[in-house]
Order: sequence, then structure tokens, then C-alpha cells
Amino acid sequence: MQDAQRKARLTEFLDRIWSGGEYDAIPDFIAPQYVIRNDPGDPWHGQTLDHAGFRHRIETSRAPFPDQAFTPVSILADGDEVAVSWHWKGTHLGDVSGFTASGKVIKMTGLTVYGFEGLRLNGHWQVCDRLGVFMQLQANAG
Amino acid sequence: MQDAQRKARLTEFLDRIWSGGEYDAIPDFIAPQYVIRNDPGDPWHGQTLDHAGFRHRIETSRAPFPDQAFTPVSILADGDEVAVSWHWKGTHLGDVSGFTASGKVIKMTGLTVYGFEGLRLNGHWQVCDRLGVFMQLQANAG
Repeated sequence: MQDAQRKARLTEFLDRIWSGGEYDAIPDFIAPQYVIRNDPGDPWHGQTLDHAGFRHRIETSRAPFPDQAFTPVSILADGDEVAVSWHWKGTHLGDVSGFTASGKVIKMTGLTVYGFEGLRLNGHWQVCDRLGVFMQLQANAG
Repeated sequence: MQDAQRKARLTEFLDRIWSGGEYDAIPDFIAPQYVIRNDPGDPWHGQTLDHAGFRHRIETSRAPFPDQAFTPVSILADGDEVAVSWHWKGTHLGDVSGFTASGKVIKMTGLTVYGFEGLRLNGHWQVCDRLGVFMQLQANAG
């Protein structure tokens, strides 16, 4: 029962916060302390964020790709964790990592294990295909 | 019950096959057809492998890092899938991707969702931090 609730909660979180940019709903989905346990290449790797810090991270990440969308592939719930594999895409409309906006669609895959406290997320352990993104940005710039 | 068996099975697979190189045990762990559903940057991305093909993939992957070891972080079982987040390290003792052996330890993190048929694996959906590995190899070569 709780597993199904948490999976639905995670899908809603990805849809409304990451894809939709509904920043005011962050406190409904995120615990007061959110720990980024692993996220190589992410500027917030290793940090603990409050709601304001979490909002800043999402705003900064969405700025170059304002239409970005996450699509879950598999969602697994077990104990206090939920794992999700996902596709991501976004149109490169702002500067990122030294690459000026190209107007091209960038695609990425990744997986994330989220920790739950009740029905709110208290952190994640994630790896994204950043090498693939780098190669796409470089090809578009060439 | 089956969830616990599959988690134990996956841990044993990572330990004996990927870390230990016990190639003769592959048929005990792998279904006759193994599908690599997602593994960006991996030469076998998108392919379906039989036991011989699977062995070739593992032998090729282990050659530059013969002491490689995977250490699971979280393991989640749900339905016919098991997700695992992991640390990897190996000593760079053979040439890989144009980088000659440096003798240095390389580290990586990743996550994998494995599909099960009974107690054998029939495929995976994975992302590894290949950008982090590339940066380490480049730093060691410089």
C-alpha cells in the first residue's frame, strides 16, 4: 500500500516539480532536509539542502532547458527507498557549461534511488549519462 | 521470499562474475537470451546476447581492469526487476578507449535495473558515470 503511494508520489514529483516547474509545491514533496548522497557532475553533489536550496537547484537546472521532461521507465519500491530509471529531454534554450543555446533537443538517460520519510523525499543517489549530454552539446556547437 | 532470493542472487552474480571473473558460472546466473536495453557508451548497448556473447562482453570489460570490484549500495526488488546502485573500482592495467595502462586506481558509480526470469537475469537497463571515468583517465595520461 505504502509502496504504491510512494511510486505515485514520485511520478507526481517528477512531473510537477522537475518537468513542470511548480516550485511552490516543493514543501509538499520534499522533507526539510534533502541529502544529495551521490550525483557525479552535479554542482550539488554531497550537499544537504533545505527547501530554498532545493528550489534554487531546480531553478538553476531547468533554466537552460525550460521545457525539460522526465519520463519514468521502471519504478521499484522496497523498504524506505524508491528507484526509478528515466528518459529526459529538453530543448537547449539557455547557456550551460560553457555551451551557448543551440535550440536543439538534448536527450539523456539516468537512474535515481530516492529516500522517503513518510510520503516526502529526503534525498537521492543518482547517476545520469553526462558524457552523452556533453557529446551532444559539443556536436551542436561544432 | 523470491525478492530476498533475487537480491542475494544479484549480489552473488556481481561478486562472482563481474568482480571474480568466474566465467564458467555464467549459465547459472544468465538466461539464454540477455537483452541490454540501455547502457549508453557501452559497445553492447541495444544488443541481445547469448551465453558466449555475454562471456565475451565480461572478458572484454574486465581486461583493462583485472582486479575490478563492484560494491552494492542499495538493492531494491519489485515485480520481476531488481535495482542496484553501486561503487566500482579497478586498477588501470590494460589499454582502454585509447588510454594506455596507467597503473592508477579508477573509480566509478552507477545504477542498474536487472530483469529476472526465475532466478536468472535476462537483461539490464543501466547508466554509469562514464564522464567521471574519462576525466580520471585523461588526468592520469597528462
